[in-house]
Amino acid sequence: MNYKAVIQYEGTRYRGWQVQGNTDQTIQGKLETLLGRMAGEPVEVHGSGRTDGGVHAAGQVINFHCKVSMSPQEIRDYMNRYLPEDIAVLSVEEAAPRFHARLNAVRKTYVYTIWNSAVPNVFGRRFMTRIEEPLDVERMREAAGYLCGKHDFLAFSSLNPRRFKKSTVRRLDEVRIEQKEAVIRIYFTGDGFLYHMVRILAGTLVEAGLGLRCPEEMGALLESGNRADAGRLMPPEGLTLLKVEYS
Amino acid sequence: MNYKAVIQYEGTRYRGWQVQGNTDQTIQGKLETLLGRMAGEPVEVHGSGRTDGGVHAAGQVINFHCKVSMSPQEIRDYMNRYLPEDIAVLSVEEAAPRFHARLNAVRKTYVYTIWNSAVPNVFGRRFMTRIEEPLDVERMREAAGYLCGKHDFLAFSSLNPRRFKKSTVRRLDEVRIEQKEAVIRIYFTGDGFLYHMVRILAGTLVEAGLGLRCPEEMGALLESGNRADAGRLMPPEGLTLLKVEYS
Repeated sequence: MNYKAVIQYEGTRYRGWQVQGNTDQTIQGKLETLLGRMAGEPVEVHGSGRTDGGVHAAGQVINFHCKVSMSPQEIRDYMNRYLPEDIAVLSVEEAAPRFHARLNAVRKTYVYTIWNSAVPNVFGRRFMTRIEEPLDVERMREAAGYLCGKHDFLAFSSLNPRRFKKSTVRRLDEVRIEQKEAVIRIYFTGDGFLYHMVRILAGTLVEAGLGLRCPEEMGALLESGNRADAGRLMPPEGLTLLKVEYS
Repeated sequence: MNYKAVIQYEGTRYRGWQVQGNTDQTIQGKLETLLGRMAGEPVEVHGSGRTDGGVHAAGQVINFHCKVSMSPQEIRDYMNRYLPEDIAVLSVEEAAPRFHARLNAVRKTYVYTIWNSAVPNVFGRRFMTRIEEPLDVERMREAAGYLCGKHDFLAFSSLNPRRFKKSTVRRLDEVRIEQKEAVIRIYFTGDGFLYHMVRILAGTLVEAGLGLRCPEEMGALLESGNRADAGRLMPPEGLTLLKVEYS
């Protein structure tokens, strides 16, 4: 049977979704070890995509094939009983035999969360990146407008253009920025994201919000394809994979 | 100069506000060590009240006397630079010479937060107590209604009545219960709270919400003064001191 599951994790103490070698400090490794014990044989877990070390997920989607005499809800409860407390399974359901969490994903939404204040926030420190200087959210929204659409996002990635031969064109459907007192949330929705793309987009918008960049320069930046022209790579703790959509 | 400050802390890794002996794992100890270094002489920190090990504060109020040639904002920034990341100073201001954070407090508000769901919540696990069985919030509200007012709350405390000679009468102004999807927040406002009182009140309301107690029995419970008749002591991680008011 093929199962689809929605999971949540706090990435703080992990090296990411998947790292070659040391699987014990990866989310995928924790899940595969547990499901292998449950099924009595090795189980391969497919995620909708990798998340970097320190990045969180509120709605990561996975699928895995296994043969067990348990209902989907029993699988969910079994997993939640034995997973470490920074990983949780929100739901498990039976999926079509050919469903694949990564290959069938059509859209993803990430949120980058900023704590914009002169004083720290002890409760949100694991999930927000603090910026002390006040951000001009209107300028950030203006810059974001230039980024939406189908573009080559090579400048906004940490890919090595000499070694990466696949297309770096992606469709960014929406960048929505919400401000609620000192919390600024930037939601990115698109058909796919390159390596480090969300964190570099967020860093570029932050630089626009600090007055270090003009919103109008986004077009030229996309055209240049030059990583050095784009903004800073924001730290991982502010980033959360929110939602993965399937057709 | 006497200073009043509002501070925030995540209590997870502390033994509480103050514990005799080992000051290194207490909030008060951390603050006194830092302020002593800043002032070049020992500084005594008075909190509005103790919080137990593992309990958080979003708006704890303190005061301390010291002589430094720094503005209140410079003191705040100095403290935030050197405090561990689970303690933060929101504001510092000059106070009247006789202002005392504990003796002058007239009202306090605590919130007890419950995650009421069959699945865990990885992001809120340090600040919420999980209860898997569905709670009937209307029943909890009904029970809370009987608790408000000026009563002897001895039954709702961990005080030893044979050794505690002071009055155990307190005025509970309001118990407000908010439900937002799986999050249930119980706000307690009153003129003062006995040892463990908020956590035992919360535990008693939870038992009413689970159908284990009738809301109507609250009156008899207050009258009995018997700890064994009241509900369970809820775990510390769900509790946060929200606000301290002064006249």
